Amino acid sequence: MISKNHVLIAIFLALLCYPSLYSQELPLLGAQVFIEPGQTAEETELWFKTMRDHGMQICRIRMFESYMRQSDGSWDFSLFDQAFKLAEKYNIKVMGTFFPTTTKTDIGGWKFPKDREQLGQFAEYIKQLVTHFKKYKSLYAWVLINEPGGGLRDTAFSREIRQQWNQEHPQREVLDNGYPVLVDLQDERFKEYMTSWMLNWIAEQVRVYDEEIHLHVNNHAIFSNLPEYDFPYWRTFLNSLGGSAHPSWHYTAFPRDQYALILSANSEILLSGAGHLPWLMTEIQGGNNTYSSNTPMCPTAEEITQWLWMILGTEGKGGIFWTLNPRASGVESGEWALLDFQHQPTDRVAAIKRVSDCIQQNNDVFKQLKKIDSGINLLYIRESLWAENVITQGTPAATDSRKIGLKNLLGYFKALSEMGINANIKAFEEFDFTKENYTGSTIILANQIVLPVNTVKPLEHFVKKGGTLLVDGLTGYYDEHVHNRMLTDFPFAHLFGGQLAEFRHSSDIFYYELAGMQVPASLWKGFLKPDEKSTALATFGEHITATRSNFGEGSVIWIPGLLGLPAWEDAQPLAKFLTYTLPLDSVPLRFEQHAKNVVMKTLQPDEAVITILVNKAKTEKEVELNGCVELLNGRVLFSTIDRTSINGTIKLYPEETLVVQWR
Amino acid sequence: MISKNHVLIAIFLALLCYPSLYSQELPLLGAQVFIEPGQTAEETELWFKTMRDHGMQICRIRMFESYMRQSDGSWDFSLFDQAFKLAEKYNIKVMGTFFPTTTKTDIGGWKFPKDREQLGQFAEYIKQLVTHFKKYKSLYAWVLINEPGGGLRDTAFSREIRQQWNQEHPQREVLDNGYPVLVDLQDERFKEYMTSWMLNWIAEQVRVYDEEIHLHVNNHAIFSNLPEYDFPYWRTFLNSLGGSAHPSWHYTAFPRDQYALILSANSEILLSGAGHLPWLMTEIQGGNNTYSSNTPMCPTAEEITQWLWMILGTEGKGGIFWTLNPRASGVESGEWALLDFQHQPTDRVAAIKRVSDCIQQNNDVFKQLKKIDSGINLLYIRESLWAENVITQGTPAATDSRKIGLKNLLGYFKALSEMGINANIKAFEEFDFTKENYTGSTIILANQIVLPVNTVKPLEHFVKKGGTLLVDGLTGYYDEHVHNRMLTDFPFAHLFGGQLAEFRHSSDIFYYELAGMQVPASLWKGFLKPDEKSTALATFGEHITATRSNFGEGSVIWIPGLLGLPAWEDAQPLAKFLTYTLPLDSVPLRFEQHAKNVVMKTLQPDEAVITILVNKAKTEKEVELNGCVELLNGRVLFSTIDRTSINGTIKLYPEETLVVQWR
Amino acid sequence: MISKNHVLIAIFLALLCYPSLYSQELPLLGAQVFIEPGQTAEETELWFKTMRDHGMQICRIRMFESYMRQSDGSWDFSLFDQAFKLAEKYNIKVMGTFFPTTTKTDIGGWKFPKDREQLGQFAEYIKQLVTHFKKYKSLYAWVLINEPGGGLRDTAFSREIRQQWNQEHPQREVLDNGYPVLVDLQDERFKEYMTSWMLNWIAEQVRVYDEEIHLHVNNHAIFSNLPEYDFPYWRTFLNSLGGSAHPSWHYTAFPRDQYALILSANSEILLSGAGHLPWLMTEIQGGNNTYSSNTPMCPTAEEITQWLWMILGTEGKGGIFWTLNPRASGVESGEWALLDFQHQPTDRVAAIKRVSDCIQQNNDVFKQLKKIDSGINLLYIRESLWAENVITQGTPAATDSRKIGLKNLLGYFKALSEMGINANIKAFEEFDFTKENYTGSTIILANQIVLPVNTVKPLEHFVKKGGTLLVDGLTGYYDEHVHNRMLTDFPFAHLFGGQLAEFRHSSDIFYYELAGMQVPASLWKGFLKPDEKSTALATFGEHITATRSNFGEGSVIWIPGLLGLPAWEDAQPLAKFLTYTLPLDSVPLRFEQHAKNVVMKTLQPDEAVITILVNKAKTEKEVELNGCVELLNGRVLFSTIDRTSINGTIKLYPEETLVVQWR
Repeated sequence: MISKNHVLIAIFLALLCYPSLYSQELPLLGAQVFIEPGQTAEETELWFKTMRDHGMQICRIRMFESYMRQSDGSWDFSLFDQAFKLAEKYNIKVMGTFFPTTTKTDIGGWKFPKDREQLGQFAEYIKQLVTHFKKYKSLYAWVLINEPGGGLRDTAFSREIRQQWNQEHPQREVLDNGYPVLVDLQDERFKEYMTSWMLNWIAEQVRVYDEEIHLHVNNHAIFSNLPEYDFPYWRTFLNSLGGSAHPSWHYTAFPRDQYALILSANSEILLSGAGHLPWLMTEIQGGNNTYSSNTPMCPTAEEITQWLWMILGTEGKGGIFWTLNPRASGVESGEWALLDFQHQPTDRVAAIKRVSDCIQQNNDVFKQLKKIDSGINLLYIRESLWAENVITQGTPAATDSRKIGLKNLLGYFKALSEMGINANIKAFEEFDFTKENYTGSTIILANQIVLPVNTVKPLEHFVKKGGTLLVDGLTGYYDEHVHNRMLTDFPFAHLFGGQLAEFRHSSDIFYYELAGMQVPASLWKGFLKPDEKSTALATFGEHITATRSNFGEGSVIWIPGLLGLPAWEDAQPLAKFLTYTLPLDSVPLRFEQHAKNVVMKTLQPDEAVITILVNKAKTEKEVELNGCVELLNGRVLFSTIDRTSINGTIKLYPEETLVVQWR
Repeated sequence: MISKNHVLIAIFLALLCYPSLYSQELPLLGAQVFIEPGQTAEETELWFKTMRDHGMQICRIRMFESYMRQSDGSWDFSLFDQAFKLAEKYNIKVMGTFFPTTTKTDIGGWKFPKDREQLGQFAEYIKQLVTHFKKYKSLYAWVLINEPGGGLRDTAFSREIRQQWNQEHPQREVLDNGYPVLVDLQDERFKEYMTSWMLNWIAEQVRVYDEEIHLHVNNHAIFSNLPEYDFPYWRTFLNSLGGSAHPSWHYTAFPRDQYALILSANSEILLSGAGHLPWLMTEIQGGNNTYSSNTPMCPTAEEITQWLWMILGTEGKGGIFWTLNPRASGVESGEWALLDFQHQPTDRVAAIKRVSDCIQQNNDVFKQLKKIDSGINLLYIRESLWAENVITQGTPAATDSRKIGLKNLLGYFKALSEMGINANIKAFEEFDFTKENYTGSTIILANQIVLPVNTVKPLEHFVKKGGTLLVDGLTGYYDEHVHNRMLTDFPFAHLFGGQLAEFRHSSDIFYYELAGMQVPASLWKGFLKPDEKSTALATFGEHITATRSNFGEGSVIWIPGLLGLPAWEDAQPLAKFLTYTLPLDSVPLRFEQHAKNVVMKTLQPDEAVITILVNKAKTEKEVELNGCVELLNGRVLFSTIDRTSINGTIKLYPEETLVVQWR
Repeated sequence: MISKNHVLIAIFLALLCYPSLYSQELPLLGAQVFIEPGQTAEETELWFKTMRDHGMQICRIRMFESYMRQSDGSWDFSLFDQAFKLAEKYNIKVMGTFFPTTTKTDIGGWKFPKDREQLGQFAEYIKQLVTHFKKYKSLYAWVLINEPGGGLRDTAFSREIRQQWNQEHPQREVLDNGYPVLVDLQDERFKEYMTSWMLNWIAEQVRVYDEEIHLHVNNHAIFSNLPEYDFPYWRTFLNSLGGSAHPSWHYTAFPRDQYALILSANSEILLSGAGHLPWLMTEIQGGNNTYSSNTPMCPTAEEITQWLWMILGTEGKGGIFWTLNPRASGVESGEWALLDFQHQPTDRVAAIKRVSDCIQQNNDVFKQLKKIDSGINLLYIRESLWAENVITQGTPAATDSRKIGLKNLLGYFKALSEMGINANIKAFEEFDFTKENYTGSTIILANQIVLPVNTVKPLEHFVKKGGTLLVDGLTGYYDEHVHNRMLTDFPFAHLFGGQLAEFRHSSDIFYYELAGMQVPASLWKGFLKPDEKSTALATFGEHITATRSNFGEGSVIWIPGLLGLPAWEDAQPLAKFLTYTLPLDSVPLRFEQHAKNVVMKTLQPDEAVITILVNKAKTEKEVELNGCVELLNGRVLFSTIDRTSINGTIKLYPEETLVVQWR
């Protein structure tokens, strides 16, 4: 069992022992070198040389147990030794990914052993690898396992751990208020525990043999698996956090022209998750799909560029493409790669090199990138995602529009992004509720259907101390026992400024008339009974449908309809409303006007400001910057077109990425 | 085994012992009071008071075994005692629904025990409840079980009963004509038996302890489960018949603007099923869906009004909404309710009160409501629905347009309804074939693919004695052994006036030219070989596709194509054709012109006539009444808008419900 | 085990012992007489008489074991004796189909026994039937089993055979080049083996008791099951090859107005599969569907005519409709039949009679029909279809456009057919690679994703000796071990004239600018690195996307995009490109212009030429013939409209079939 105390001590030790390895270091670009039997030494050398020659300083290698462990139980590391030596020769850092033996057609690897025996074999594998490869200067980090998340099956092992966990985490039958618990979140809660347990176990195995080596892990399919990931706990055994960003697998709920935006959101989640640790994107789709992936695609050079800049614009300390060279065997053969079938670099490699050159040429800038904090925070509540999963279990996602996941929250992210504002996306527990002043700061709770009872105090503190809280959709409908708190002594009545009377489902989009605008909303229209300190913002007939109320030095805007979903069609009304409503005066920089399909990330390495602009519209877009930062001289650090100077209105070409340093 | 004789004796006794409790009584309106632990006594009292203050006189309570039976085997009835006492205080009748222990997430309850042990526990539960709650004046009825139908699983218990049943109902291997039986309806037949067996068993258990108490049961999802329901047999142990009408669960095959019409059809099925017994709608959706139901919705106050009047217009002796107060626990928490989260009445409660007030103010009228019989009967053959289920098993309903169920029959209902005519919807066995004169009476067999051989005689008698028979679609394709009788000595040749030569599938809508009109039809076009006493009504090239033939004093119209399905797009052509073809002179009252999306129900409490009109069109509609009843003075009994008088053409506003008494 | 030598000896013996029974014989038309208990002797006699009177000379009878074998183990053949005697009386040949006992609702019969016991029962059944029915002159052939293919289940029997097969056909773990095998085709390979094994076993059983009798078998759902069918091996035990062509079951991936074209393609596959043996279409949909089939339909008389002429135009030695009379029992009762429910012929029978009359009246012509070989060959590689099945296993066909099967290949067939050109469709192993001159001959490899390494030599030989090779799509991506050979020493570099650099997926249609035309393509765009002997045909930016290269006396056109798929929307661009590119001068006859939705088959019985034209367009179409054959006098052999002479441009009416003999 992982006790709370152990966690705190571990965090403390982590802070002591592992000073950020990256701070003041340049971001690293690179790719996965896919090592498998049959490849020649010449080919392998060519790959490392190609990386070096094209601005790549880091690689990942999948450490197949099946290509090392011999049938007689002995170990033959030669295939991988060769790669580590070549990495040394070409000065490439290696992140080795643990990949214990699995079935031949399993392209992702297992996430949990099926029994104690397999766990023991895994321990032996870790021992062998950590002790053997320790000698290589090129060894930079171990990746604990490939893409944890989504892999819990009903096995002897999972049942054993669950039995024990159940004893330590029994589900209440009856709540304090006397109501029975009929639906619970135990399965989801256990899934999160088990993922954390496993990663910690692997880290412990490594630490037996190597106390120094950098440890890293990459989550994946973030918008589905997020509720399993307890990043603050992971920080206790990791040195950096990573993620996989494969649009053709992970972003298919969104149209392709939104992938830059979605990668920006993915990065924000990782940045927040990493906390004091550095983060980097451990896997980024590098090439074509033939038969793998549900929505096949081949990234363009422009997309490669855009994605890297989204990562850099979110303080990412690097990006590693999947893969450098294509596999020749199995279901993914010939796919995903940056190099072509003759090992020659494609235009996607050239795109990476251009970004790498920019980093090198401006190393003073890129050593200390710091995102400008807009003060706007989209918080997600783990239990909300769990509850939605559990409650909508019966119907397929394709036909049940109530399976929303993060899509409503990300609709806000889109609206803000098209305003030129970088919102933070944070797990509730990742937000710092300990400050004494939140003036200018905003929290948006976008359809967070579960608000655990223990969130009352921090949220009240936040608003009392000057924060602005925007409450959307069914937020607060349930508590963490899937009990409807709006019916039974609503614990947020005081903070939100009233009661929720009822929700009414609407099969069509409906509109709030807010400050003279028609703001579209989806799914459920809530009716409010405000208390005396609240003012109505919108009404429907005799019903009040949105309120603003003051609480301490801050205020709460309560709109119990889903405003984020319609932003996927058109974010302009929501953007306008947010501009009107939120305390944006303190946002250092944003667009003068809503700019559809334009993404901006803003950074502040020192006294200068850097803006990263990507135009995903099919036409030229003109944007004008606005904000409290004075923009004097604009120096073009990077552009995919020929640029000399920037003044006044910026005209962006379709697919252009433009990076400007302002002084 | 239930012998035929026992059934007849039981029916006789039923008629003797239980004189209709409702006759000459006013319809009762009410709602489900949802009792669960955690609720306060004050809240519970408020609910009963609210009912009384808003014209509700009856409630249902789900009698959770899990909240009464203690872990030591003792019983604690206190939670429910409190409710029964409050019901007494506020003069509310209680229908208690048996609800034996089930899993926490099972929101509907089981329909059959899984083994003998569970059956024994159920018997004990019934004993405990019947004997304990007998003392309350407020106890009005027991509801045998929640929503029987659709719940037969393969269990030890079902296998035991099936084995015995198989011996008593062996399937023939070879028919009298020598043909083998390759597909049979035994599974469906057994399902019907088992549902009846179970309900009768529960009733018997109650009768051991209480010979007087009113017994009731509510079927559900009527358009799917109907073939399981043997209403004439149910009458032998029930005192009234009920049903559930939850549009968001049960009417999803139809668009929302047809729900009033569909509820009218649902009511007609129950009216016919109830026979000499009264019927009422035991559950009607009262409020919003969040996560339950496949097609979530929140009824409007207008819909609540319309639905109640559809029930009253079909002689319904009441309507009980599901629910008064929302549950706070489990997957349905916060849903379905008439009251809001602060226990305050919504506008849906106000709508109920208005209908209740109308009933009270016109109690002379509402004590003796009698539907005006149009003489038009849509008969469904149980075996047809069974055969379609069995034969189309392999393909999903969504993609196989041949899974028709009642949709073609209901297309006729719609066409007739838009003519202002209330058709009866009856199981074949519910129709009275014993009369000696059927002049002016019509039977429509809309794609009844199975006509059991024993239907020949009653149908011949009906037509011989002056009835009109309209035969549509594949009617008569099979006999009750799924044997194609059209091929082998067609037993209806004499009655229908010829032979069916062949059917040809059409993937497009095709048209019959009938009496100068183009009447659309679906799926299969049949070719006829009429005998000498028949006349062709329509032809296709050299083929005759529809005939009329005289038989005794009546006649048969045979159109072997599906005319009902296209009426869901546009019912006007079918309505026109029916006007032209059927003996409508004896229909007392109907529209002068086809009125799309207008529903009319007509009643005759005494010498007066009452018309209930609902306009579901998005625009104002003008209708003019026509018929053999003279309409002199129109007194507005009820309208959702401000009305004083009615004369000549009636202009109906969108969503309006208008009830007029004519003298 | 079937050794290679045994096969060769068997082929040799087959050639010796069974001289083509059909050569110089007229094609036979007929239908399935469906015999089941309950039918009267008079009805049965009427069916045989009707056949004789309407130009049908052959019938099939399903030999139900369940209607012969008695419960005491004795055999009662009387039901079928009667049919065989009536067949003699009316001079109808009988093909009896083995149909061992199965479940009552199994309408297709099993394909493999579930265990050794059932295999033994089958052997006894065969013995009984072969010895008993040998005496009838009317017995013409045994059909080994109904529609083999698609029926392999995991049973005791299949596991037994698989175990043995695995030992004899172990899968390699590592390839010669050192790469591991991660995905293999063993399951698919075994399926093919097992189907062959079973058919051969049945044939052997028959041969124990009858060395002379004609043996036949009909495959089905050809576009799905084709990869299971090893026709060259089947030839060793068959006397003729057959197939089932039920558009409502088998052609549903295509629109109905393409069914004539698809039946033409189906016939080409059988013609090639049959090799030196004759072939006939053993089952053709004869009538209406009610509840069977996923896409119900009733063929029109025009379709019946078109389908028969497609068969005759592909050298088919006959066509047998399913069925003459409808079944009266079971799930297919009343379906599929040519006769109506009163045993009278429909217009579909009249259509058959007209074709039969044409054959009889021109028996000199129809005894020696020989398809004119266009020299264009669409080759399919069995392993390609296997690999696609295996690799796309995870996703449903409806949503994964990468599940192509033969659809891209058939797009070429369509384009060529609309040019008036009959392409051959052949398994790779059915093509004759032993010639010394291929001038004027073309092979098209349309997205054959697997090219086994042993195809290099024959393909090089073909081109070296003057052939033209067109390579489309991902052709050659894998070898037979699903290993990506384009990455590892591409064995076709020499022949194709270069290397494939990479593929890029395109979610939209993209265009090749080829010879001034815009030719649309689908799914993946390949980039080429041509060698010095190749010329670029098309480019995309700096990339070469299509090449032509000379090899020996022939040439290779390499277009690594899928050109066939877009031809299902509009085949004109592809047709134009093929006209421009392929050596069509040697095609004896084709259209002057591309004719959308017109199908032409050309035959050459002697010095004359016969053209069969079908117009599936909704409007009149004018076509002009062109080619190296001189067309002098056109004698109309057959037309569905009134025709006297043909000169110059031919105007075809919608749905018309026109057969002209040119001298």
